[in-house]
Amino acid sequence: MNFENYIKDKKAIIEAKLDDILLPEEEDPPVIHKAMRYSVFSGGKRLRPILTLATAEMFGMENKKVLYTACSLELIHTFSLIHDDLPCIDNDDFRRGKPSCHKVYGEDIALLAGDALLVHAYRTVLKNLEHKDVKKSTIIALFDELTRCVDTRNMLGGQVKDVIHEEPSDKINYLCKLYRQKTAALICAAIRAGAIMAEAKKREINALTKYGECIGLAFQITDDILDLLQDQRNEEKMTYPGIVGLKKAKEDTAKLIQDAKDALKMFDERADFLYHLADYIFSRQK
Amino acid sequence: MNFENYIKDKKAIIEAKLDDILLPEEEDPPVIHKAMRYSVFSGGKRLRPILTLATAEMFGMENKKVLYTACSLELIHTFSLIHDDLPCIDNDDFRRGKPSCHKVYGEDIALLAGDALLVHAYRTVLKNLEHKDVKKSTIIALFDELTRCVDTRNMLGGQVKDVIHEEPSDKINYLCKLYRQKTAALICAAIRAGAIMAEAKKREINALTKYGECIGLAFQITDDILDLLQDQRNEEKMTYPGIVGLKKAKEDTAKLIQDAKDALKMFDERADFLYHLADYIFSRQK
Repeated sequence: MNFENYIKDKKAIIEAKLDDILLPEEEDPPVIHKAMRYSVFSGGKRLRPILTLATAEMFGMENKKVLYTACSLELIHTFSLIHDDLPCIDNDDFRRGKPSCHKVYGEDIALLAGDALLVHAYRTVLKNLEHKDVKKSTIIALFDELTRCVDTRNMLGGQVKDVIHEEPSDKINYLCKLYRQKTAALICAAIRAGAIMAEAKKREINALTKYGECIGLAFQITDDILDLLQDQRNEEKMTYPGIVGLKKAKEDTAKLIQDAKDALKMFDERADFLYHLADYIFSRQK
Repeated sequence: MNFENYIKDKKAIIEAKLDDILLPEEEDPPVIHKAMRYSVFSGGKRLRPILTLATAEMFGMENKKVLYTACSLELIHTFSLIHDDLPCIDNDDFRRGKPSCHKVYGEDIALLAGDALLVHAYRTVLKNLEHKDVKKSTIIALFDELTRCVDTRNMLGGQVKDVIHEEPSDKINYLCKLYRQKTAALICAAIRAGAIMAEAKKREINALTKYGECIGLAFQITDDILDLLQDQRNEEKMTYPGIVGLKKAKEDTAKLIQDAKDALKMFDERADFLYHLADYIFSRQK
């Protein structure tokens, strides 16, 4: 497979659908619809929705049957970025090199735009669920997945830990749990959502969950490594290489990537994309 | 029927279930679970979940089959209050006579607790939907309802208008639309959710929607009137009696209450509670 072309194709499909599901900028009241579109279309990699499409495809499900679901993952991701950037949380003026949502639209509108994207995510996914072939059990499992990954045991719990600055005795265990909650949970949910929609078997979903947890953690540790190498680290913030050192951080990422790939064995060549993606995440370190 | 006892009984059932569905305060990370519980248990009237239970009961559905759904409406309501009170929105230090969530837990935790309550609402409702008797079409209709009432065409759109301070040419029309979005939409959704769960007929749901819109609007205008009478008005804020005068505001509320009651005719004595509730909302003016 041509990994880059595959990503490019999926990204185009996802961005067209995102444009379709977000209300137009002139919709009343315009300012919030502008803010929502500004943040959704500010250069994301679309990793999470691509994972949903790719996973569903592994089980023979065509993209359109899972495209709204995929987009809902991107809306959830964007909601979390807007709220994370707010002055009371990370106070980040820039996101992907552009002014963050609240710098452009104000804190009030950014807060409400984040809320609106979260609600819109749960609204969007319905459009894939109305189809007669979708079972009731699939709907329940999917909503369970899409709410669990955000709740206080996952994304929001990780975000809380990011702002309260605890001093844990076992730093590395604490940080790994935080990264699992803050980053890996949503990546896992993106993969599992694709598998749930495609009615994958339980042991297949378990294997994909293992894969998702490993690449999610590797992704976040790699971010830490890149920040360190580019000298963009925040001295106050606990980081993985900050605790174990750069060399061990790289070794541990390599191990996670290998574990991720091992988890895919049962799928043979159907998992080509996920296999390459794991390597790609590792290659970002260089 | 004894209106006060009915409310008291339902309130007790709802508060016990809310206690059951919220994670305990010691759950990791404790601060967000404390903040969520603080705001949920700070003296709400539980109007919205009571409406859900009462409406389902009209169609013979027992409370327990719709109790999680009812509670999800209260969680959505609490989410909106926490975010509304934040410094970047209304900057309210008090809510129901107690310090608002961000005054006790800080802006960061209040923001995330609001997010968490919204997600938890959509997670909670699932527990009523897993039952074998609940049809797939009911699940879709319910999620449609619970997301539509919050989105930018409803609650969040109204909230945006509250913060942008426009100068509309037709003030009273503008304000009525804002109140429909900000207040009536969620009250309507609470009623409609009960009817949807009980598989009410379309014309029944339409009648209840009319009722909900009328009492929702009357509820908000009454709040304005009470603020004016208690001299707690905010001079900068557009209010209904501020535009049309106190006398006409009271007359218009009386008309809305009558319209609400007229909409209930087809239900005869089954609608006793909703009928009394409309009168109760009007009586708050005195």
